[in-house]
Amino acid sequence: MSTIPALSPSRYSLTVKIPNTSFEDAVARVRSALADEKFGVLTEIDVQATLKKKIDADTRPYLILGACNPPLAHQALSAEAPIGVLLPCNVVVVGDDDGGVDVAAIDPVAMFSVVGRDDIASIADDVRARLERVLQTLGEVK
Amino acid sequence: MSTIPALSPSRYSLTVKIPNTSFEDAVARVRSALADEKFGVLTEIDVQATLKKKIDADTRPYLILGACNPPLAHQALSAEAPIGVLLPCNVVVVGDDDGGVDVAAIDPVAMFSVVGRDDIASIADDVRARLERVLQTLGEVK
Repeated sequence: MSTIPALSPSRYSLTVKIPNTSFEDAVARVRSALADEKFGVLTEIDVQATLKKKIDADTRPYLILGACNPPLAHQALSAEAPIGVLLPCNVVVVGDDDGGVDVAAIDPVAMFSVVGRDDIASIADDVRARLERVLQTLGEVK
Repeated sequence: MSTIPALSPSRYSLTVKIPNTSFEDAVARVRSALADEKFGVLTEIDVQATLKKKIDADTRPYLILGACNPPLAHQALSAEAPIGVLLPCNVVVVGDDDGGVDVAAIDPVAMFSVVGRDDIASIADDVRARLERVLQTLGEVK
């Protein structure tokens, strides 16, 4: 029994459900779709393995991938140097309770709202459109 | 000449200046102070090297460390499964123009504002207090 509930849609993320898939296959599909939109995966955190090792917690499969589109990251950092505390854009891959996998990407427009710079909103819009296309290759985005 | 400006304080981060230090020494001090507050560093992105390699951009030294306190991360994920898109808590270490180094940590209270769950605000308060103590070992926090 996982101590972390199943992933649900949120107002700060874009979410898609993939029914009847292995976790490994879902991760491979996410990585491939990210590459098609020119996102490199710079970081990977196996939350399930980390929490088991560090505090002996039993959780569902939960992976955090840190995705970065270098030209857009460079634009954002050049306009707003501290924005690195909000980078990269995370995509989480989470096992559900029915033999499928849920995927959520940060909504960069929601994340940029804490920055409060309307003049660089177009960067967040571009990243959001790309992440939406990534998730659309997997299913219906909520 | 760096295409990324020097780090400045922001409303979504906690910032400290360390004058007259090598970048490597500053990174070591940040890592040690994080460990003292029970944060593991799960990810590390060398922004300068990544942007040079991917798009041939010349930038100042800029490192993003992904810090995680496992019990608090577990509490947050158990209450709000999608919050993984906002984890880990980043601390950036950035070379300045005067032989010193600036360090900024995400303000988890600002970041949690996009989640909009007052009932788990105490987790963000705890993480913020720890990150403040981390930065206070380095200088005056802004």
